Amino acid sequence: MSKIRVAVLGATGMIGQRFVQMLEGHPYFEIEGLYASDRSDGKKLKDVLKVRDFEYKNETLDMKMETMDLKKIAKNARVAFSGLPSDLAGKTESDLAEGGIAVFSNAGAHRMDKDVSILIPEVNPSHLDSVKDQATYGNGGYIVTNANCSTTGIAPPLAAVRDAYGLDFVSVSTYQALSGAGYPGVPSLDAVGNVIPFIGGEEEKMEAEIVKILGTYEDRSFNYAKFRMLANCARVPVIDGHLESLVIKMDDTPSVEELIRTLSSYKGEPQSLKLPSAPVQPIIVRTENNRPQPALDSMAGSPERARGMSVVAGRIRKSDEYYKLFVLSHNTMRGGAGGSLLNAELAKAKKLL
Amino acid sequence: MSKIRVAVLGATGMIGQRFVQMLEGHPYFEIEGLYASDRSDGKKLKDVLKVRDFEYKNETLDMKMETMDLKKIAKNARVAFSGLPSDLAGKTESDLAEGGIAVFSNAGAHRMDKDVSILIPEVNPSHLDSVKDQATYGNGGYIVTNANCSTTGIAPPLAAVRDAYGLDFVSVSTYQALSGAGYPGVPSLDAVGNVIPFIGGEEEKMEAEIVKILGTYEDRSFNYAKFRMLANCARVPVIDGHLESLVIKMDDTPSVEELIRTLSSYKGEPQSLKLPSAPVQPIIVRTENNRPQPALDSMAGSPERARGMSVVAGRIRKSDEYYKLFVLSHNTMRGGAGGSLLNAELAKAKKLL
Amino acid sequence: MSKIRVAVLGATGMIGQRFVQMLEGHPYFEIEGLYASDRSDGKKLKDVLKVRDFEYKNETLDMKMETMDLKKIAKNARVAFSGLPSDLAGKTESDLAEGGIAVFSNAGAHRMDKDVSILIPEVNPSHLDSVKDQATYGNGGYIVTNANCSTTGIAPPLAAVRDAYGLDFVSVSTYQALSGAGYPGVPSLDAVGNVIPFIGGEEEKMEAEIVKILGTYEDRSFNYAKFRMLANCARVPVIDGHLESLVIKMDDTPSVEELIRTLSSYKGEPQSLKLPSAPVQPIIVRTENNRPQPALDSMAGSPERARGMSVVAGRIRKSDEYYKLFVLSHNTMRGGAGGSLLNAELAKAKKLL
Amino acid sequence: MSKIRVAVLGATGMIGQRFVQMLEGHPYFEIEGLYASDRSDGKKLKDVLKVRDFEYKNETLDMKMETMDLKKIAKNARVAFSGLPSDLAGKTESDLAEGGIAVFSNAGAHRMDKDVSILIPEVNPSHLDSVKDQATYGNGGYIVTNANCSTTGIAPPLAAVRDAYGLDFVSVSTYQALSGAGYPGVPSLDAVGNVIPFIGGEEEKMEAEIVKILGTYEDRSFNYAKFRMLANCARVPVIDGHLESLVIKMDDTPSVEELIRTLSSYKGEPQSLKLPSAPVQPIIVRTENNRPQPALDSMAGSPERARGMSVVAGRIRKSDEYYKLFVLSHNTMRGGAGGSLLNAELAKAKKLL
Repeated sequence: MSKIRVAVLGATGMIGQRFVQMLEGHPYFEIEGLYASDRSDGKKLKDVLKVRDFEYKNETLDMKMETMDLKKIAKNARVAFSGLPSDLAGKTESDLAEGGIAVFSNAGAHRMDKDVSILIPEVNPSHLDSVKDQATYGNGGYIVTNANCSTTGIAPPLAAVRDAYGLDFVSVSTYQALSGAGYPGVPSLDAVGNVIPFIGGEEEKMEAEIVKILGTYEDRSFNYAKFRMLANCARVPVIDGHLESLVIKMDDTPSVEELIRTLSSYKGEPQSLKLPSAPVQPIIVRTENNRPQPALDSMAGSPERARGMSVVAGRIRKSDEYYKLFVLSHNTMRGGAGGSLLNAELAKAKKLL
Repeated sequence: MSKIRVAVLGATGMIGQRFVQMLEGHPYFEIEGLYASDRSDGKKLKDVLKVRDFEYKNETLDMKMETMDLKKIAKNARVAFSGLPSDLAGKTESDLAEGGIAVFSNAGAHRMDKDVSILIPEVNPSHLDSVKDQATYGNGGYIVTNANCSTTGIAPPLAAVRDAYGLDFVSVSTYQALSGAGYPGVPSLDAVGNVIPFIGGEEEKMEAEIVKILGTYEDRSFNYAKFRMLANCARVPVIDGHLESLVIKMDDTPSVEELIRTLSSYKGEPQSLKLPSAPVQPIIVRTENNRPQPALDSMAGSPERARGMSVVAGRIRKSDEYYKLFVLSHNTMRGGAGGSLLNAELAKAKKLL
Repeated sequence: MSKIRVAVLGATGMIGQRFVQMLEGHPYFEIEGLYASDRSDGKKLKDVLKVRDFEYKNETLDMKMETMDLKKIAKNARVAFSGLPSDLAGKTESDLAEGGIAVFSNAGAHRMDKDVSILIPEVNPSHLDSVKDQATYGNGGYIVTNANCSTTGIAPPLAAVRDAYGLDFVSVSTYQALSGAGYPGVPSLDAVGNVIPFIGGEEEKMEAEIVKILGTYEDRSFNYAKFRMLANCARVPVIDGHLESLVIKMDDTPSVEELIRTLSSYKGEPQSLKLPSAPVQPIIVRTENNRPQPALDSMAGSPERARGMSVVAGRIRKSDEYYKLFVLSHNTMRGGAGGSLLNAELAKAKKLL
Repeated sequence: MSKIRVAVLGATGMIGQRFVQMLEGHPYFEIEGLYASDRSDGKKLKDVLKVRDFEYKNETLDMKMETMDLKKIAKNARVAFSGLPSDLAGKTESDLAEGGIAVFSNAGAHRMDKDVSILIPEVNPSHLDSVKDQATYGNGGYIVTNANCSTTGIAPPLAAVRDAYGLDFVSVSTYQALSGAGYPGVPSLDAVGNVIPFIGGEEEKMEAEIVKILGTYEDRSFNYAKFRMLANCARVPVIDGHLESLVIKMDDTPSVEELIRTLSSYKGEPQSLKLPSAPVQPIIVRTENNRPQPALDSMAGSPERARGMSVVAGRIRKSDEYYKLFVLSHNTMRGGAGGSLLNAELAKAKKLL
């Protein structure tokens, strides 16, 4: 069976290059083209490489950037993976959907649209149905987004506890990696030996997205979940991996051991469907007293194709009716390209591709 | 008037060296001796210097370390500033108090003793009375401690809001600097490009100390304040300055502007007594959207002698009945040596020295 | 006596802000205006502050940026300190000189001009005479440059050994700080946990400038010194302070002790003239086995006004006819704003202002 | 054919854990036991894990540390890979050799012994003959060392140019990674935002080892190569990967292009024997203007089993008769465990195992 042809948009950026990495040898998809801005036209991937820790195949490194050409993409590809900056993503992604392309986007532009889902396949697979209500669906075009990178890390644990115990109150403080700001991103004079307690728009995104993700899609509209959500976001001098501290109050008060079991055993459709990029365990709980750490745990996830796709939780503590824990997720893998790739894999399994 | 002679204990460590820095040219105190472990005996301060950012006078740099000698200290000094590690501090500080020495300690050993105060002069000056109830007081000896470094940063803001609005709920997540772990402390292989979500005993200390500090001392006993306190502590690759995110619920719901005024105008006895190390403003509120930052704001505080003694707050936001903000304090100045020095200045003003 | 009025060009940059810092309370100079690009017009210094480690006076922090206005500068100022980027500096500085302004520049644009000196007052004070041969001198206008920041650190030690022993061969490898690249400069994704073995044009500058600096100015022309100079330049994740390893071969072969004496006792006209920013010791030699270090030694220099103006040398070793050592200098103080300020102080002492 | 059983000594350290990583699934060797100090006895590898960037198999992570037991090793293993600290390595390795064990050591203790080679298989494979002259050889026991990590990075390029053009003068300055100091190694308070221009004994090792490596072994003795070698060593805040700047003078003066060809095409016995850990290219030359970088190039090397085994050179420049370049090598792979593993593979190919 021939593979589905996909375009990668924003291929000179951190997210775009993670898409390329994860698409190497993918069983469903093959790259039709790498698209970037005019000034990178004709450059090879190896000439604009920014991601530190992985090995591309030589033939991948020699792939060339092309200027964005919606007609070419509409003609040659079925899917677009978008790592575009938000200001470009809004119109470009809409145009592609109108051209009959299924767009799986990491950009924030369409996340809060009334007929676009913020999809995390383990958490809210039924939200994918919203694509059928998009105006462009008749032509085969639609838009699916992944969540903001720091929202992604907390969504599976919060869904797991909500399902088991109800959810009442969440306070999160983030320790976010530099790669989340893209390239060139944060100047080194601000980052080295420092913490910056501000990431533009991030707290608002977290507070808005999580209740949409944990809500329902019924009768062509999203109903938001109801619990208190408070976010404090900060940037730390780490390359990859968003660490987040969580304080949670639930309706029930399970023991710590029970909570660990609930998180560790959390599974969803990607696991039952055995999607290629689905980790065996969406949430890995570490019981050492000093984990998870970005340097050691960001790439957690198995099998090989799901590296960087597990959320790692640790230091689960109970204080009367409150629970405290830390969670870590790879912000450009599970929280970026990997999230959208898993969305596309679910769409294929659901016959939407 | 001759100056009060003081011994500095643990003078090869990060806190001990900050004591020495802040005592240079001090109007009340003069150094009688620098004490450290046997293996540093006879070494000059300049040979064991660890603090990065300040200039000692040459005569100070040439001061020599001595082996701890309780009898010599008891004979020659009236005050001991203790930067000892906790395991040594317990017995040594008790022995010094028995020898008639007023001990101002940065160590945790005696903080939770039933007749020892955790003193922050702006916040709980009346707690200093507890020294009169210590068994050694008749000989002139007693122990006063400062708070743990991460507790120190939140105590003045919490006291300010408690006084004005009542206090119900506090959740804090810390971004703590490497100097808080002492020297050699955290291995660079763990610290560089990483966050470690664990600091042994720190969360317990924060949760226990803050309610003692914000409580009362009456009838020879401490009554603890009653509000919910939840702490998540993590270490970040920053040299000096603990940043902390706070979520607070109070009994009242002031506007953000009102809250800023309350924090900015907070003052206490050190300010009215014009103690030498007292900052004009115990809490400085910055209104830029990306402050406070450890690299820019740790040394805040004026006059010159009070550098590093102000807590800096910022990013104050309101979310219904909850308030979110970041606070920053210098962990080895206000949160370490400077805290104990200010305690001693208060003791002198109260005729306890 | 009234002070000389000076304009600071490029006041939003790292060098410009060091000029402002060093000019606070200066005995010769007072700031007439801070100039920057249009987009900073009207902003206060405190709103564009980038330098981490110093305290401005409040009145300085409230100074406002103005758009560059050559006529205003020519009318109101006698001196311009230029922290402009090189592409702007060429024409702007020439125009100012034509307008009768004495320009002391940190930019590279005019350094290799045939009638412009690269002045390091301890090393080549006679080169200042070149201003009299500049076409604009009749109107009072002229240009004097300081050396590239990494050249500055090696010039005094090389001058000292050249004077004492002759100089034959120099190989230098640099460990350069991030502030040398300006702001925003190096992206944090490139800098954190990494070394970048390339700084555009830096090696060529070092090799060209050092032989001009160590040469002579006679009969209206510069005669370059003759020795082999080889440079390898790299950027390390340090905020301030360029460390450089040196291998030197001289005509003579002094003992290490003799060489230390020669370096430590090196002095020049700034010291004999007691210029305000002149360090008592232009070269400080440390004899510990692990110094100089950027974090500990960049700000070396006394008196107070000369902090950051000494070069610190250490680890001096002899290997037959070769000598190995490390030198450190503060790249935006001695190697930047401080260098040009000292040049202006020499000019005043020579009645050129 | 059954695999050769090997003991890993020092398995809690950075080098020991790289041995374990590289031995997973190795075609020649299988691990007989992991040995460490008493205090780690019984701990699993996953409980003492220090290496950041790789994935062990679960069965490997569950392997347990044992207390060093020479008799057990002598009985059950044929080979010992030693990642011991130097002070322990001297006697332990000698005892093992006497017990009939072939010891491949990363420690410095025996490197300069008169009958022990510092083996780099591409460079000096004939030195392996020295084992036959060791007193213990009759029992099957012998010692082979790899070079110091910073020596390893320059040896292949220097061998390549020596072979092609003769070698006269080498000056090297190092930018060494933190993992080279082991664990806990360098305190983070010294490392973050700093460079330390001193590594105890390192310069002496580099200067002594390189001439032994590039010399000959004839008539039971090592004859040292004759060229000038000067080293300046410094530690930078990088986790893995030693960068080194080189200045070289050779007898001939090839063009830069010719030199690139010489380095790129350099091969040795590991390549012709197709040893499992031999990289296809011992030296990879990158022609971009800002490479090699530790963050991007330390893990260079193919096939998969040879990752981290190539030296990467770049920025090759010519200045009359001098050549300047940067080289990078992974200090705990090629410069550590991988070096000794390749030595053992060569020994097997030569029927010495």
